[in-house]
Amino acid sequence: VLGEFALIDQFFKRAPQRAVLGVGDDCALVEITKGQQLAVTTDMLVEGRHFFKAADPYRLGWKCLAVNLSDLAAMGAQPRYFTLSLAVPSADAAWLAPFSKGLFALADAHGMELIGGDTTAGPLTISITALGEVPPGHALTRSGAQPSDEIWLSHEIGGAVLRLNECWERTTLTPTHRQALLQRMEAPEPRVALGLALRGIASAAIDLSDGLSGDLGHLLRASRVGATVRLADIPTHEAVRNRLQTAERALAIQCLLAGGDDYELIFTAPASAHETIGRQLQALSLSGGVIGTIQAGAGLTALDEFGAALPLPKSFDHFSA
Amino acid sequence: VLGEFALIDQFFKRAPQRAVLGVGDDCALVEITKGQQLAVTTDMLVEGRHFFKAADPYRLGWKCLAVNLSDLAAMGAQPRYFTLSLAVPSADAAWLAPFSKGLFALADAHGMELIGGDTTAGPLTISITALGEVPPGHALTRSGAQPSDEIWLSHEIGGAVLRLNECWERTTLTPTHRQALLQRMEAPEPRVALGLALRGIASAAIDLSDGLSGDLGHLLRASRVGATVRLADIPTHEAVRNRLQTAERALAIQCLLAGGDDYELIFTAPASAHETIGRQLQALSLSGGVIGTIQAGAGLTALDEFGAALPLPKSFDHFSA
Repeated sequence: VLGEFALIDQFFKRAPQRAVLGVGDDCALVEITKGQQLAVTTDMLVEGRHFFKAADPYRLGWKCLAVNLSDLAAMGAQPRYFTLSLAVPSADAAWLAPFSKGLFALADAHGMELIGGDTTAGPLTISITALGEVPPGHALTRSGAQPSDEIWLSHEIGGAVLRLNECWERTTLTPTHRQALLQRMEAPEPRVALGLALRGIASAAIDLSDGLSGDLGHLLRASRVGATVRLADIPTHEAVRNRLQTAERALAIQCLLAGGDDYELIFTAPASAHETIGRQLQALSLSGGVIGTIQAGAGLTALDEFGAALPLPKSFDHFSA
Repeated sequence: VLGEFALIDQFFKRAPQRAVLGVGDDCALVEITKGQQLAVTTDMLVEGRHFFKAADPYRLGWKCLAVNLSDLAAMGAQPRYFTLSLAVPSADAAWLAPFSKGLFALADAHGMELIGGDTTAGPLTISITALGEVPPGHALTRSGAQPSDEIWLSHEIGGAVLRLNECWERTTLTPTHRQALLQRMEAPEPRVALGLALRGIASAAIDLSDGLSGDLGHLLRASRVGATVRLADIPTHEAVRNRLQTAERALAIQCLLAGGDDYELIFTAPASAHETIGRQLQALSLSGGVIGTIQAGAGLTALDEFGAALPLPKSFDHFSA
């Protein structure tokens, strides 16, 4: 068994890149690019709550950074630095090696530098704080949506939570879908490039972590507006779409409106930006599109294929789930 | 039982102070003071490992921020912002209310603003990331100690871990000492003002969290120097000093050389700064002093009252403790 400090050195200590001072002192020191604001976000993942006990450590390392990158993306921030707090039951190199590999694979893909951390023994818990940069006035907040803005979704959703429903034995996937959706569930791709491209274009944005109705609801309340979305226009993973005309229709709708773990962006923009955004999505190979419209007032309405209002599910809550 | 979002709102959401955008969006946005570097540190506290199950929630809220402030202090950084990731078994207002009060009591004392967080259900775990500011070139790193520098300790130590030893039934304190040392153990005072005062004066610094020999050892290795410290010169809590001439001498020495949870600063400075530092300690009502000298070479020697070398204990390690 490795000691705490040997463990940090072996798996998490790397030469500083952009940081003035990296891992290994009481604090890290960094310089924020002149004229930029600092965007800060933090997410904690707990075993048995956010991931299964047997979760693949490589993909878990990837995902715990991905959920933070998704928040930076939803802000239009350029990812820069992160810290990692890690409680693990034991200093197990066979787990730590792939975990750190998955973590750094995604970090390197986005130029993110690990600048500090804390490791301790305890129930498996991962907390990451991510720092990004954004020019003043260009951040994509939740509060800028305006009546008549189009509501966009970055890419197809519903797949991650459909796979989760298979884990709960509520459905059975084909082997091909199972494999593809495991990837969506365990190794989401944060939409960082899209977030950066939307600076100055989108009026508001939020990332989809707890489910469309809940997360869009946050955006609507922050912007003091209402919205209507059309089920038929939601970019939908094939495995979910296939179920819409079957006995599993209710499950499929739930996956689309209340399913979590998508880590796609919902954002709003005036119709005048429609073509620009369409080109950006295409350039990023994203199958997103407009799913509805912002309107004055409050509240969210979701219409089915026939124009009838769907009952909206409660959004995910860690304390009542 | 409160929902997750109601819980955040009730206990942790406050009006932004210095932040451009505080709690409640995908990221917080802050502006770092022009010309300053950002100091970043993170610490995770786990129930049963860093604190007892029955720990007083007010003092626990205080302490989990204090250990991060202590890292900022050891860097000479001005505290500014922090994020809080909190896993709790349930959304229990009777626990959350005093926890958040203790947290904010210390935060307010140092002008620290909570700008983001994550709450989830899980085994009680608290992870804080703290952000501070320091002028370029003024940070107190671990690596600047020079041969012949004096080694200072900010205030008396040994008390917190003596109280911990009473919890482990290895000693018995007087009621007065028990009360005083419980405070030292559960609600340490981070030496922020001292850290700021030492900018441009101290050559190196580290905060005492894992024990003197281990933490000073980190500083020595980072500075590529050695040191000799004298037991008799270590500012020592009365309850520990009383035990040095008794059958509990070994315990007392262990509390001084290997005891953790002191959150005092160890720092080095040239002898020319001796009077300045002495005045600063006095101004801050700290009973600190010089405990030894840096020398060329490597390794730490601790001398007892008779000038004989003491065997040095292994430093604390979360995975072998």
